[in-house]
Amino acid sequence: MKLSNSTSTITVVGTVAFDALETPFGKTDKIVGGAATYISLAASYFCKHINLVSVVGGDFPKQQIALMESKGINTEGLQIKENEKTFFWSGKYHLDMNTRDTIDTQLNVLATFEPVLPEGYRSPEFLMLGNLMPSVQMMVIQQMKTRPKLIVMDTMNFWMEQARPALDEVMKQVDVLSINDAEARELSNEYSLVKAAKKILAMGPKYLIIKKGEHGALLFHDNHVFFAPALPLEDVFDPTGAGDSFAGGFIGYIASTNDISFDNMKRAIIYGSAMASFCVEKFGTERILHLERAEIEERIQEFIDLVQFDISLVD
Amino acid sequence: MKLSNSTSTITVVGTVAFDALETPFGKTDKIVGGAATYISLAASYFCKHINLVSVVGGDFPKQQIALMESKGINTEGLQIKENEKTFFWSGKYHLDMNTRDTIDTQLNVLATFEPVLPEGYRSPEFLMLGNLMPSVQMMVIQQMKTRPKLIVMDTMNFWMEQARPALDEVMKQVDVLSINDAEARELSNEYSLVKAAKKILAMGPKYLIIKKGEHGALLFHDNHVFFAPALPLEDVFDPTGAGDSFAGGFIGYIASTNDISFDNMKRAIIYGSAMASFCVEKFGTERILHLERAEIEERIQEFIDLVQFDISLVD
Repeated sequence: MKLSNSTSTITVVGTVAFDALETPFGKTDKIVGGAATYISLAASYFCKHINLVSVVGGDFPKQQIALMESKGINTEGLQIKENEKTFFWSGKYHLDMNTRDTIDTQLNVLATFEPVLPEGYRSPEFLMLGNLMPSVQMMVIQQMKTRPKLIVMDTMNFWMEQARPALDEVMKQVDVLSINDAEARELSNEYSLVKAAKKILAMGPKYLIIKKGEHGALLFHDNHVFFAPALPLEDVFDPTGAGDSFAGGFIGYIASTNDISFDNMKRAIIYGSAMASFCVEKFGTERILHLERAEIEERIQEFIDLVQFDISLVD
Repeated sequence: MKLSNSTSTITVVGTVAFDALETPFGKTDKIVGGAATYISLAASYFCKHINLVSVVGGDFPKQQIALMESKGINTEGLQIKENEKTFFWSGKYHLDMNTRDTIDTQLNVLATFEPVLPEGYRSPEFLMLGNLMPSVQMMVIQQMKTRPKLIVMDTMNFWMEQARPALDEVMKQVDVLSINDAEARELSNEYSLVKAAKKILAMGPKYLIIKKGEHGALLFHDNHVFFAPALPLEDVFDPTGAGDSFAGGFIGYIASTNDISFDNMKRAIIYGSAMASFCVEKFGTERILHLERAEIEERIQEFIDLVQFDISLVD
């Protein structure tokens, strides 16, 4: 396995946040979370040139920023508003871990966030738009000096309901859209994911990833479809960040290989699934902060063993 | 692909029934259904020596029996109680097609069913116990003159609640248990399917298949796990019989290859998944009554394309 042997750069925009979580297995006080946190950490195992674009308040721990820097994540584009507070989200998961209730959302610094990309962030080979207000995602696209080789976008149902026109505009600019199954149904107004994918691919993205949580992920492109299962786990402690860890593994692997072919995207989906499978094993970022390369390889082998079969159709 | 080139025999026991179905796509009057019907039809594409054990009333159409005979299904063991009525089930599916309500169940001939296996049925290489009262499944096992190479058993939540001791006894006699995810959770009292599988494998079966409907199927054995996705379909018209078509494809493929290794079971799971994917495309048995070998091969290729990826972990 070749990791981090490419000089490709990923610019990542998304939230850096505090989360308070409750799952059937326990609860946390405020811990560090946010889409861009998970994406950057997961991608850092594959790519050593990650530019983080986000905003936090003065309450955000400086040692957390240092920790990200130590992972090779460039935080020059992380705005710190000393007199404001970091975005806060609190949620509670149901027993099935696929559904959750939001208990509290405090936008804080996010309410007025206007990303300003440092000069060195404006020509990345890869751009990852984590879930954020679509207008903010668009501001990031507009600051690109050259069109990235691949733009990947995550979003959520909230923006489909509250900012659909802006969302539609961003979708026209991206190559890969990553959403979950409920969001795909909402965006397309189709129950069948195959029909949903056809409609969504007509909205702009050339590739669509539909994440189904414990049921795996689908990748659609033209008339092709690829499926990667989630790893069956004894326990899922905390699903928070799984989708973002998936996205980080996906874009990180693609950046490390510098290959945007469909075949390589399949591999990237497997690497993304592996990162998601680590993420859910512990609360917050605890697990994906401390991974060894050998663990990642072992996990990839588990995915291979899980789905590999040998059928020859030649008579 | 080699089909039907083995002389192995499968004895199949299960219901032959009338179903009345309602799905979001339409509804049917009484149509032919039943576990053993779907199992035998699906298996008939792989194996030409299928012995059917079941019971119907005088109201069951003779041409349906002739149709099964024309598929190479031996109906000598199908009891016909001329003065009674065939088992009837009526149900309605919800929009997600994974859940359904039973509207009516009329046991009729099934209430007093005591299987008596013709002499030629008692030494099959393979025994498929379709979903039925566990005591009836046990009567079939007890009529075996030699222990089959593989006994596969399907069951349902109803028997877990109403006949657990008898179910436990049957489970100790079988090699492969096939149930859905909700049933696995109920049987084991574990939410995690990995934990559920460990507990269930300790109850007797050496192999456990957990069917997850549109989310695919898992095969557990010792510490091994294999996953096969369901084919993403534009429309699922009627899920009735999907699990039984899966079982029929599974046991049929194994009989045609006469190979009960784990690697061959993986292939059998894929063939079972293919048969299930055909079954749901039309109401009742309509689709699996009329399949061409080339269609099955094409479908298998779709499964290969769906999950195949190429990752080399060698540096």
